[in-house]
Amino acid sequence: MEYPFEIEMKVRDYECDLQGIVNNSVYQNYLEHARHEFLTAHQVSFSELHNKGLDAVVARVDIAYKTPLRPGDKFIVRLNVRKEGYKYVFHQQIVRKEDEKLCIKARVDTVVIDNGKLIPSIPEFDALLSI
Amino acid sequence: MEYPFEIEMKVRDYECDLQGIVNNSVYQNYLEHARHEFLTAHQVSFSELHNKGLDAVVARVDIAYKTPLRPGDKFIVRLNVRKEGYKYVFHQQIVRKEDEKLCIKARVDTVVIDNGKLIPSIPEFDALLSI
Amino acid sequence: MEYPFEIEMKVRDYECDLQGIVNNSVYQNYLEHARHEFLTAHQVSFSELHNKGLDAVVARVDIAYKTPLRPGDKFIVRLNVRKEGYKYVFHQQIVRKEDEKLCIKARVDTVVIDNGKLIPSIPEFDALLSI
Amino acid sequence: MEYPFEIEMKVRDYECDLQGIVNNSVYQNYLEHARHEFLTAHQVSFSELHNKGLDAVVARVDIAYKTPLRPGDKFIVRLNVRKEGYKYVFHQQIVRKEDEKLCIKARVDTVVIDNGKLIPSIPEFDALLSI
Repeated sequence: MEYPFEIEMKVRDYECDLQGIVNNSVYQNYLEHARHEFLTAHQVSFSELHNKGLDAVVARVDIAYKTPLRPGDKFIVRLNVRKEGYKYVFHQQIVRKEDEKLCIKARVDTVVIDNGKLIPSIPEFDALLSI
Repeated sequence: MEYPFEIEMKVRDYECDLQGIVNNSVYQNYLEHARHEFLTAHQVSFSELHNKGLDAVVARVDIAYKTPLRPGDKFIVRLNVRKEGYKYVFHQQIVRKEDEKLCIKARVDTVVIDNGKLIPSIPEFDALLSI
Repeated sequence: MEYPFEIEMKVRDYECDLQGIVNNSVYQNYLEHARHEFLTAHQVSFSELHNKGLDAVVARVDIAYKTPLRPGDKFIVRLNVRKEGYKYVFHQQIVRKEDEKLCIKARVDTVVIDNGKLIPSIPEFDALLSI
Repeated sequence: MEYPFEIEMKVRDYECDLQGIVNNSVYQNYLEHARHEFLTAHQVSFSELHNKGLDAVVARVDIAYKTPLRPGDKFIVRLNVRKEGYKYVFHQQIVRKEDEKLCIKARVDTVVIDNGKLIPSIPEFDALLSI
């Protein structure tokens, strides 16, 4: 699978729990941040969409946890996006930077809500599909 | 599906993001907290297991987001657990308290690591299967 | 010092960091949640105020960390509120439930912003001062 | 005041709450991350210290909130450290990158605990004082 967008991040100690590894829920933060940075890189602002009454919301996540990240680890979050019916489906992976070890593989289904009502698509997101 | 264990919780304002609803990643916190409370209710301590070198880790989560929780909402987190090969699979749901509206449906696959090595089962968790 | 309002809470494992104790920043979540529950108990909604253009914002926090909370600990968050000039000053403490051991002592200065402008007071908050 | 160490960071959308600004508690995460990066930059690992039984813990924080950070804002976290008795006192500030606007001014008192007992100093931290 090809990933046309990626960002580099680094584990922050407070993101680790008492097992000494990044807490499971935090990877969703990483995945979300990468999606929003992808939007930003293509002149789409998540918070401005919200202010216009348009909310991209997650309908489903499926995350496979392969290798845990640890304090100080640098990592890469990658993504691509495909259209499936009403959904914009993001395929994402997180790899540890030093050795490209796969940490997370995820599929995130999102839909767009226009003032409370599900809509099939918005031009701002359709433009991202050809990237 | 039957859920032999449940806890009641309440949304805290800081758990909501700029969309005014609970952030997606926070539901994983809720789901995890319910699992750990389930362990505690049956005299199994997640942090004590960790101190003995035994870590229950999440191998996969599949979460369907149905209805968002909002500031002040009370909700119920339910679960059951089944054994599938090496995995202890938790089936969980979150419903809004006032009307039993389904908010989250989740499947969480966990495995047990003994000082870094995957093991097929531990008696502390097997005892939970008949509940 | 007297505290006319208190709530009971319980540490959730994901709130603990790699030191095995509740992360420092999480106590601010606890303190904030107690303040918002105090408002709610007196029919003031933080999120509804926000929707009306009124934001109570924290201008300063001073937190003394006395004893760390650990996984599973139950604790009480207490507060009172005093007016000092434009500020509504919350005095808060967190004690461990089992032995009333003092964990946190905090002073939180808040001010009210009306559509971006600092205002001296609002009736919703003034009503809380006599409690 | 001079700050011999700084890091650049960027607001992530999930760090913002329903007021549309970075939640108050998150600044403590930023401040902590900067302190740990400072340690790392001088070959001191917070998590390795913990594994040796040495925990640097926060005894007090005093944070003045001047200007809120918003989605997408880049910012700089600066710090210096001074010794006062048993305490290593960090003076920190956060400024918005685009205009150097002061967002946060903080004083963070830390002490070192050696297997549960307060100790006056450790060489790893003393070495940081001359920087």
